[in-house]
Amino acid sequence: MAKLGQVTLKDVHAAELALKGLVGETPLVGCSWLSERLACEVYLKLETSQPIGAFKIRGATYRIASLTDGERARGVIAASAGNHGQGVAWGARKLGCSAVIVMPKSAPLMKLANVKALGAEVVQEGESYEDAYAVAQEIAAKRGLVYVHAYEDPHVIAGQGVLGLEILRQLPDVQVVMGSVGGGGLMAGICAAFELHPQVEIVGCQAKGAAPMARALERGQPVTLDSAATFADGIAVRKASEPMRKLLAARMAKLLEADDEAIAGAVVTLMERAKVVAEGAGALPLACLKEHVARFKGKKVALIVSGGNIDVNLLSRILDLGLIRTGRRIRVNVFLPDRPGSLNRLTQILANESVNVLQAIHDRNEPAASLNTVEVALTLETRGREHADRVIAVLEQEYTASKVIVAR
Amino acid sequence: MAKLGQVTLKDVHAAELALKGLVGETPLVGCSWLSERLACEVYLKLETSQPIGAFKIRGATYRIASLTDGERARGVIAASAGNHGQGVAWGARKLGCSAVIVMPKSAPLMKLANVKALGAEVVQEGESYEDAYAVAQEIAAKRGLVYVHAYEDPHVIAGQGVLGLEILRQLPDVQVVMGSVGGGGLMAGICAAFELHPQVEIVGCQAKGAAPMARALERGQPVTLDSAATFADGIAVRKASEPMRKLLAARMAKLLEADDEAIAGAVVTLMERAKVVAEGAGALPLACLKEHVARFKGKKVALIVSGGNIDVNLLSRILDLGLIRTGRRIRVNVFLPDRPGSLNRLTQILANESVNVLQAIHDRNEPAASLNTVEVALTLETRGREHADRVIAVLEQEYTASKVIVAR
Repeated sequence: MAKLGQVTLKDVHAAELALKGLVGETPLVGCSWLSERLACEVYLKLETSQPIGAFKIRGATYRIASLTDGERARGVIAASAGNHGQGVAWGARKLGCSAVIVMPKSAPLMKLANVKALGAEVVQEGESYEDAYAVAQEIAAKRGLVYVHAYEDPHVIAGQGVLGLEILRQLPDVQVVMGSVGGGGLMAGICAAFELHPQVEIVGCQAKGAAPMARALERGQPVTLDSAATFADGIAVRKASEPMRKLLAARMAKLLEADDEAIAGAVVTLMERAKVVAEGAGALPLACLKEHVARFKGKKVALIVSGGNIDVNLLSRILDLGLIRTGRRIRVNVFLPDRPGSLNRLTQILANESVNVLQAIHDRNEPAASLNTVEVALTLETRGREHADRVIAVLEQEYTASKVIVAR
Repeated sequence: MAKLGQVTLKDVHAAELALKGLVGETPLVGCSWLSERLACEVYLKLETSQPIGAFKIRGATYRIASLTDGERARGVIAASAGNHGQGVAWGARKLGCSAVIVMPKSAPLMKLANVKALGAEVVQEGESYEDAYAVAQEIAAKRGLVYVHAYEDPHVIAGQGVLGLEILRQLPDVQVVMGSVGGGGLMAGICAAFELHPQVEIVGCQAKGAAPMARALERGQPVTLDSAATFADGIAVRKASEPMRKLLAARMAKLLEADDEAIAGAVVTLMERAKVVAEGAGALPLACLKEHVARFKGKKVALIVSGGNIDVNLLSRILDLGLIRTGRRIRVNVFLPDRPGSLNRLTQILANESVNVLQAIHDRNEPAASLNTVEVALTLETRGREHADRVIAVLEQEYTASKVIVAR
């Protein structure tokens, strides 16, 4: 096997051979809705359909498959609150090897349950990922376990690269491949897979609030940020290491970036238009493509939807935000005359307009209300912007004497 | 072409040939999480990845492709507020033919916009689907357009059947194929596709609140229900016609049924575990499989995820319901001593337990509160059932003197 800095196409081919029968191919599907809107040919590489819902299964399983019999008998260990932990647990179970996953205490119960369900031993230690990492190193030394790094490992990188070979088979004339960069393992693997296809543009993407690799590529040196601020937890990293920077620099001069608002928008678009649930890191390439449509005009673009492990609570909030942004959920405060029948008149208007009432708070204590008005705060569900505008217009016409406040 | 009652494997093969280059193949993906939980091998046929997000594109496009040049020059028409309308609009655009889609006035703006975006002429008439259907027949007669029926049409049935041929190629040793029955076109096509595979069990599924075909198969005659009560709008039908009953009866003695609660649960499971957005009709087969696991134990089961066109407002509500059912969102009413600092003490407890407050209503007017207590109604976001139970226990211990009411 090559060293970290020298992962080649041959290593990726070796990974593909080793993973045959262990990790299956994922679909690459065209998305005509996105293609029409973005004026290019958009294809989605659905790593969401992996058994753990993310590409990390590839690198982790290849790493474990490459261990000596003695190493495998002792077992593996990794620190992760996310997809890498599930990947290591899955690969270990598949290959009959024991696994320890160290997670920070704050890890969501769901992720804990997922790793346990895959048969791994879970150790909950430390407040942050860094704490968990230190604990994992200690346990590894004490118990003689092999530490499986999430990206700084040539086997892991080669394993992730296999999905690049699949793209080449599924869409031989692909022109652009876009994927997220956290540690950089995925895109380093993609670079290796496309070694003989220098004409294909490989585009790495980072979240604006956590883009150490983008800075590192600009400055030509490793970078550590003070904080990583993005809801895309799979790529919320602070550090860009030198070996990973070098691997990526060979193929990309800079990275594209998108902010959390754009990433959340891409999550909603993928759900509504491609019927795919993507986590933040998985939706990021689409967010970046949307912001650079001119650059990719007319090209065949493969977006790597790297994973779909998004917490349902978070997903629900992103959807709500999407509904608000598109006018399908509106917040209207109406000031009514304070007399019997007023509320009934209001609800009649809403019924006539076929609008759903999600919440109504009728509050006489509201300070903004005058002596003879009472405020009703409404959360309404409409059929879209046009419908919302009509409802607001009707309310404004009815309550000209008092007041209608629309939160936008 | 065969008559309605005699669609054969040959017709489905003819449809496949005609659709080559027009409508692509959809992926069949294994889902190991479901397979482990349901003790069988679960595969998902992702019709959600069709350009219109549903299988209806197949039958509609084949019907239009089979028109004479003269017919195509005049154009087609269909009544539909859903996937069939989009399918006809898509197929017409692809084949350079004009299309009129008649929709009831209540149709969601989103669906209206989708059909318009596909270049069809939209006519909004009537309160119900039946009204729209009558209007469409009138326009068809007046303007000499070909009416494209959503299922009572041998071309449409043969077109839908093509997805059965794909399943046979993708999983040659499939043992069970499950799919939804609305009008019955999809499953009639599947029956034809599996003509030479009598050992494969074909299972039709209906929503409990709208199962006329289930009743028709039991009674051996057509059935019309008074109402169709299910949120799965794609299969909310009241009528089971005699020709469709006969087509299905040849292969299935009865249908499986699941209620809306189970269908909503399946929508959430597909999102969380398969990362796929399915509409009610698309999730129904999984709901039925879950309720009959013993019957399918150890078998290779292909579930047809027939479509993913679910309104985001509805999806948001289904997710919320799922969060409530799994204890990740709880509603707790706490009665606090009515003195300064009480609310601060409560919020401190919630902060200590790392629970998110989604809504807090502090209400002194609550009649259930005594003179010296005040009620706070909390909507909380937890990390899961265990976490929720712990938070409730802590609150109950703190407020022994007053009261804690948990809505379950």
